[in-house]
Amino acid sequence: MSQPIRVAILGYGNLGRGVEAAVQKNKDMELVAIFSRREPSALAQSASVPFVHVSDLPNYQDKVDVLVLCGGSATDLPEQTPEYVQKFVVVDSFDTHAKVPEHFAAVDAAANANDSLGVIATGWDPGLFSLNRVLGEAVLPQGDTYTFWGKGLSQGHSDAVRRVPGVAAGVQYTLPSEASVEQVRQGERPELSTREKHVRECYVVLEEGADEATVREAIITMPHYFEPFDTTVHFISQEELERDHSAMPHGGVVLRSGETEANNKQVVEFGLRLGSNPEFTGSVLVAYARAAHRLFKAGERGAKTVFDIPIGLLSPYSPDELRASQL
Amino acid sequence: MSQPIRVAILGYGNLGRGVEAAVQKNKDMELVAIFSRREPSALAQSASVPFVHVSDLPNYQDKVDVLVLCGGSATDLPEQTPEYVQKFVVVDSFDTHAKVPEHFAAVDAAANANDSLGVIATGWDPGLFSLNRVLGEAVLPQGDTYTFWGKGLSQGHSDAVRRVPGVAAGVQYTLPSEASVEQVRQGERPELSTREKHVRECYVVLEEGADEATVREAIITMPHYFEPFDTTVHFISQEELERDHSAMPHGGVVLRSGETEANNKQVVEFGLRLGSNPEFTGSVLVAYARAAHRLFKAGERGAKTVFDIPIGLLSPYSPDELRASQL
Repeated sequence: MSQPIRVAILGYGNLGRGVEAAVQKNKDMELVAIFSRREPSALAQSASVPFVHVSDLPNYQDKVDVLVLCGGSATDLPEQTPEYVQKFVVVDSFDTHAKVPEHFAAVDAAANANDSLGVIATGWDPGLFSLNRVLGEAVLPQGDTYTFWGKGLSQGHSDAVRRVPGVAAGVQYTLPSEASVEQVRQGERPELSTREKHVRECYVVLEEGADEATVREAIITMPHYFEPFDTTVHFISQEELERDHSAMPHGGVVLRSGETEANNKQVVEFGLRLGSNPEFTGSVLVAYARAAHRLFKAGERGAKTVFDIPIGLLSPYSPDELRASQL
Repeated sequence: MSQPIRVAILGYGNLGRGVEAAVQKNKDMELVAIFSRREPSALAQSASVPFVHVSDLPNYQDKVDVLVLCGGSATDLPEQTPEYVQKFVVVDSFDTHAKVPEHFAAVDAAANANDSLGVIATGWDPGLFSLNRVLGEAVLPQGDTYTFWGKGLSQGHSDAVRRVPGVAAGVQYTLPSEASVEQVRQGERPELSTREKHVRECYVVLEEGADEATVREAIITMPHYFEPFDTTVHFISQEELERDHSAMPHGGVVLRSGETEANNKQVVEFGLRLGSNPEFTGSVLVAYARAAHRLFKAGERGAKTVFDIPIGLLSPYSPDELRASQL
């Protein structure tokens, strides 16, 4: 194998840790450093590679092949991706759907002006789910596309539960409605309401003296968050919460249901069952980091998305090896 | 929308008819002609476009953007793809797994020598299933890949059933073992024997006077074809066979089950439920015909496979439209 691909991480939250773990499972890569806005001394003991303050990042231009940006989409990435693509080949997981075109334009301009390349909006949604929506519609132009999410821990909805008076702690899971998924899988093409697509489950630890019925009512009637869904509230102890609900599972399914001739139903399905959302997302980012490095070496410049990148470039194997073993 | 992509078909069996139907569902394409070795007069009444004898194909070089080759992998495509890629951008569904490297080399050489491009081995397996095996292994490098086929009509196994003495007619379906699929879906990584992966179901019409028990025994003990599997034989009437078993369903599922950190199981699944195998395969070929045309216009030459082609090129929509609506 040739020289390993030298990867660096900016941002060391859950996603940064997922990327760190993923790089170590890929033998053709090495992790050079983790950059953070926090003081390196506060982090250094928990990781396997040097922690470096973000202010030193410009000095690493010759030591890093791909910089994986692990900040948030609200404020970090809109600034960081166009900035760092000027000096590094970068990959991000920007996920504010409505602002993708704007983000793409900013990264594309900065990359082209600096002879660089950036892959944006990778991960699984946007990312692998987006790929499968486009694939399904391309091979079944006459049909309907359905996306169901879950079982997954929802950070925003968990926060909403925790703000309810009387709630000491809690988590919320979004689950696809199994009956609706099965209906789509069988080739029916139902029009599904919000309530028919997903259900919500809350696991709540009450504050001392709080009333179950009052808390349940406050949750299930909460506008936008819970009122439009069938919501179940389970009351558990703090111990149970810590023991059974500290993982970050997620996943879901994209279905394309169509017809080729009058009576021939065709269904394409892509699904994920993720024990850890940030670790899987990190693993996807690392596969796209490999592709970004190869595209850059092949002379490509500008911003790219999952739609622009051949799947073969994600694999550590050569085109010859892939054709011989996987076709 | 710009000029439609002008598609022609060579070979008018089940797959050729599937491609014909698929082109008509894609508004950015038009079907120019169907070429066949048979006399056009024998075919002309069943289709919507001109039938032309294959000997006239060289005269269509300026009228066709992509030629979709719908012959068989045993003898047609090894000759046809390297021959016709010299004059046309071509797409085929070559599916003799072991001979893909040899076929690729022949098509690549002929395409490069003639400033042309050919996409080989598209369809769903090889094709979309191959893509998902590579994707799954790239995002979960530590794991196992499983492919299950069915429920599907198997032509080779149906032929084997029909050769059994006492059988007047019959069909054979391959089905995934549901218990094994579910085990993999749940993140277990079992080592599955042939018998544990698939089961076989036969629907048989007996010749007059033939004995059920003798025929059943002859089928289920047939080496290679049925002996390694749990096989069920149903005896039905000729009328039931025609009424209930004339479709060509197929499908299956590719699963990648892996771990990102010690206890976090991650499962990626891609599945197809196809009411008509040749119509779906035809639809996939047509999406790759679109990509082939675009790659050729962009200056690409040589042989390509599904691993080399960005998913965005399969879609009739522009990169801008895809980013705005699908990410």
